[in-house]
Amino acid sequence: MFDYNFKTDQFKYETLYEGIREDIINGHLKPDQKLPGRREMAANLHISITSVKKAYELLTDEGWLYVKEKSGYYIKKINYRMKPVKPFSIPAEDPKQEKAYEIDFKANQVSTRLFPFSQWSRCMRNALNYPTETLSQTVPWQGLYQLRASIAKYLYENRSMAVNPANIIIGAGTEYLYTRLLMILPENTVIAAGDTGTHTFASIARHLKIRFDKVPLEQQNMSPDQLAKDVTIAQLSPANLFPIGRAMPVDQRIAFFEWVNAKPGRYLIEDDYDSEFRYDGGYKKTMFSEDTQNKVIYMNTFSKTMIPSLRISYMILPDDLLETYEKNIGFYANSVSTFEQYALSEFMEEGYFQRHLDRLLTYYRKHRQNILTAIRNDKALMQKTRIEEYGAGTHFLLHIHTDKTEQQLIQSAEQSGMYLSFWHGSHKDHEQILVINYAAIPNEKIQQALKLLDDVITVM
Amino acid sequence: MFDYNFKTDQFKYETLYEGIREDIINGHLKPDQKLPGRREMAANLHISITSVKKAYELLTDEGWLYVKEKSGYYIKKINYRMKPVKPFSIPAEDPKQEKAYEIDFKANQVSTRLFPFSQWSRCMRNALNYPTETLSQTVPWQGLYQLRASIAKYLYENRSMAVNPANIIIGAGTEYLYTRLLMILPENTVIAAGDTGTHTFASIARHLKIRFDKVPLEQQNMSPDQLAKDVTIAQLSPANLFPIGRAMPVDQRIAFFEWVNAKPGRYLIEDDYDSEFRYDGGYKKTMFSEDTQNKVIYMNTFSKTMIPSLRISYMILPDDLLETYEKNIGFYANSVSTFEQYALSEFMEEGYFQRHLDRLLTYYRKHRQNILTAIRNDKALMQKTRIEEYGAGTHFLLHIHTDKTEQQLIQSAEQSGMYLSFWHGSHKDHEQILVINYAAIPNEKIQQALKLLDDVITVM
Repeated sequence: MFDYNFKTDQFKYETLYEGIREDIINGHLKPDQKLPGRREMAANLHISITSVKKAYELLTDEGWLYVKEKSGYYIKKINYRMKPVKPFSIPAEDPKQEKAYEIDFKANQVSTRLFPFSQWSRCMRNALNYPTETLSQTVPWQGLYQLRASIAKYLYENRSMAVNPANIIIGAGTEYLYTRLLMILPENTVIAAGDTGTHTFASIARHLKIRFDKVPLEQQNMSPDQLAKDVTIAQLSPANLFPIGRAMPVDQRIAFFEWVNAKPGRYLIEDDYDSEFRYDGGYKKTMFSEDTQNKVIYMNTFSKTMIPSLRISYMILPDDLLETYEKNIGFYANSVSTFEQYALSEFMEEGYFQRHLDRLLTYYRKHRQNILTAIRNDKALMQKTRIEEYGAGTHFLLHIHTDKTEQQLIQSAEQSGMYLSFWHGSHKDHEQILVINYAAIPNEKIQQALKLLDDVITVM
Repeated sequence: MFDYNFKTDQFKYETLYEGIREDIINGHLKPDQKLPGRREMAANLHISITSVKKAYELLTDEGWLYVKEKSGYYIKKINYRMKPVKPFSIPAEDPKQEKAYEIDFKANQVSTRLFPFSQWSRCMRNALNYPTETLSQTVPWQGLYQLRASIAKYLYENRSMAVNPANIIIGAGTEYLYTRLLMILPENTVIAAGDTGTHTFASIARHLKIRFDKVPLEQQNMSPDQLAKDVTIAQLSPANLFPIGRAMPVDQRIAFFEWVNAKPGRYLIEDDYDSEFRYDGGYKKTMFSEDTQNKVIYMNTFSKTMIPSLRISYMILPDDLLETYEKNIGFYANSVSTFEQYALSEFMEEGYFQRHLDRLLTYYRKHRQNILTAIRNDKALMQKTRIEEYGAGTHFLLHIHTDKTEQQLIQSAEQSGMYLSFWHGSHKDHEQILVINYAAIPNEKIQQALKLLDDVITVM
């Protein structure tokens, strides 16, 4: 008993403390058993009385011992079933890996071939070499000022938007920012959005117990007349209505400005996702830049313009909401790594971002044309489909004349290693609407993809 | 009129479209004015009829023109006050920079001097050199498998925790994970936690309209008897009760296990923040590792063990909650950059993390001792203060005998360039309790800090 192995790299009291604790846990010391007095224990173990005292006190403090006045230290009764840690092996590979598709029309894919990894690496390396003091400074809750300034500059030069960096909030993804935004809106908030492509935002609202009306987009359009009276927030994507890819007509923009200005407490959310990709020179102005009353909440992300592996999005708030945000939830630390904020700022300041965007736009325009031409030249396919496209985004629609259900098409595609994505919008009878997200389909796979698609539509 | 400048790098229809649009916006073209016919316009401008047709159609589609059957295209009336974009300058420096303190006892500070930036850079560089396909793969919603496996291995080897990587969720900060967790708990959730140091969690719960009971920690302890009957979740930090720094006694742990197992739907949250820093060899076992019924939700972060600039935390969920999470909010993309997840995994696998932790622990232990000794040797200060410390964390408590209010002390400290942080716990009369967060106070500033502190307490 008590023949503990005192090591040189540990305080004596620690060894004694740990030894007694283990003996209690494994049952060598029994409940209500009396421990030797401090002097006796010290003499037996050839350690100081102070060490014994310290160990006994720590054990008492942590509840392993109790003290009887003028008697000494006793073992406490503990009903403690310890969970034995068995030898445990951790699989080196993820057992539930996502299926990879040969042909993947999934959304949120990006052509990563064009991404300038070497320039990005240079910016990251530079950021890592900043002085330690710089990197260890706490980033403001809105995000690094330098990055907010770079974004403001980009928006001014490319989108004619006059944005104060103080109104920009940087966050780990658009979903993150939507969650935060919903946390500062008043009790009576009711959101409305077109019934297409806003499933994530709708789910977030549902989880935060905020009403979210999905407005049917019959003429592929939404008008304020369709909103319920108590709606306070309308979410729009004027540059590029998902998944149709059509820009919002001017009269509709005006109607929404009239709606938002008609009653205090109303706001528009402009989700400008994918707006960088317009190929027809169409109306690119953001509603943010046309807003004279500070009523537009602007959202955008770097997921599609950079790579999805980077989780950096931003939101621009009107002054009043910014104030509420800071007051109510400014305690949340910024959610994006400081390194990557410095790196992205440099990437933008050096002009790499603009150059990458230009190349991406050229590539997508040509690639889109290639796929559209390939479909138009495919007589077999053209008999069964109709293209709908408005020169924007990284997708277009393909109406399929078929009596098959969406599920049937998805399943037979899956058997051929192809992932299909459908729009659940207002399709006609004997029709399904496929969303052709072509960003991740390389040129050399176009023919194969169309052949597979034709098979899936045709085969019984 | 219509003397547009056709450039070689733009499609003709685009130039025409943009020109007419601008002329409508700036008022050169009036509402209801008729545009020249397509043939006439084409001839005047020496461009093809197809180009004019395309431009007119785009303008009509976007709402700038309307069509009269058998007559032609007319300018639509638009009540559109455009916001002119003025020349706009963006300040290079953040106008509202946070005040820097000469002596900063703020929490959440970390000694960044010891952080091995060069090893971290190496891991980041390696991650950036991974094949493009690897980096552009979508990370599962829980986070990169490799990193989850590295964390599981670390927890097994260092904390005797048998964790399946499938139960780990990686997120951009502990606040982020708390928000997500609160989104999957059932309607009747009521949370209880000690009334110290959980302000952020309480605020998140308030925003999500979940009741949060703050339990007074009178004996610097919390017992299940103090919880209201309808409480379903108790949040604990058994390794290190903030700000007292005391480990939770064993009988209290048992009491909480009995409480959680007594009724279905109850859980414990073990916030293991700062648990890596124990200097007295005290009881380090996590309640997670002692839990036999899968009732412990475990939280930890790399903010204090790495650097706060990295926003990486993790949460371990019991199987039933994991299933709910995946089903209900698995649609949220993972919030941490893929690069940094690869880099951190390598940093751990290479043993850099463990070595850094060891150095940090040695440094903090010694530094803590230096500050404690300096206070004890400062006779003037010792007459006005009392140290309370339990050998854990990166702070201890200093009870100040004073009749001044907290606000008075903070203000006079601020005038001397010192940031003070107080505990609003159960202090006695004529006393204020200072939280001495010493991580960011370098050795050479200790004497200066104590001198300033003495002045602040003494001066009228």
